[in-house]
Amino acid sequence: MALDPDLAARLKRNADGLFTAVAQERSTGTVLMVAWMDDVALERTLATRKGTYYSRSRQEYWVKGETSGHTQYVHDARLDCDGDTVLLVVDQIGAACHTGNHSCFDTESLEFDTESLEFDTEPLEFDSGAQQFGDQDGPAGVDAAREPVDPAQ
Amino acid sequence: MALDPDLAARLKRNADGLFTAVAQERSTGTVLMVAWMDDVALERTLATRKGTYYSRSRQEYWVKGETSGHTQYVHDARLDCDGDTVLLVVDQIGAACHTGNHSCFDTESLEFDTESLEFDTEPLEFDSGAQQFGDQDGPAGVDAAREPVDPAQ
Repeated sequence: MALDPDLAARLKRNADGLFTAVAQERSTGTVLMVAWMDDVALERTLATRKGTYYSRSRQEYWVKGETSGHTQYVHDARLDCDGDTVLLVVDQIGAACHTGNHSCFDTESLEFDTESLEFDTEPLEFDSGAQQFGDQDGPAGVDAAREPVDPAQ
Repeated sequence: MALDPDLAARLKRNADGLFTAVAQERSTGTVLMVAWMDDVALERTLATRKGTYYSRSRQEYWVKGETSGHTQYVHDARLDCDGDTVLLVVDQIGAACHTGNHSCFDTESLEFDTESLEFDTEPLEFDSGAQQFGDQDGPAGVDAAREPVDPAQ
């Protein structure tokens, strides 16, 4: 099967025909990994609900977890505003990272050059009660927590 | 100031000297946007805590919110396992997307080719109580919700 033509028309690919895929865990919101897809990888993902990517180094498709058992059940998929990134909301079995870490971003925080910067906003209050992943209202279901939007850019 | 040499050595850049940056909202876990950085953009981000990116189309640096007021205060930054993506955990003021949407992924869900697939895992239980963004234990603070890790890949 080929990718839906309307969807294919929305995609903005790089010179190699690839676009970015971000996998986010549905139950926690954790960003698990970032990889590449082409049209075929996306079509297979949408046909199987298994996260399927394209490896530039190996020049082949890979189904996440096919060898490790650490599969991704794809719950939701969305393109971003300009069509060059797809966000997958997934149920991740085991580790998403080939290192054995749950997330590829389970790494040390980078050091900021200064901790004493002036900044004109206060950090938002942490409010775990407002979080609700996996509903149908948004990629991470956060409509209720949204700031009022100023459409003027 | 130049980027810390140890950090620069960890980065894996594409042919244009760029790598992927994912901005995630700290309070909600929402993936807000995906953009490009080079060493300078990352250094400026770490020096100012303002999300700073590189525009391929305009071939210039841009500080998120500089014209719109929709700034990003960068709370945490991490490289992924292979150094080609940085995850920024941010406090987003107003809309992250140039469309006026809160997130660039506030788009319609893609259609899956079938809803009746066999899949050998049950979706995980939704458990909002386990979520805790913004702590120091992980990019989205989900240590407590992690699956047991099987290091065999």
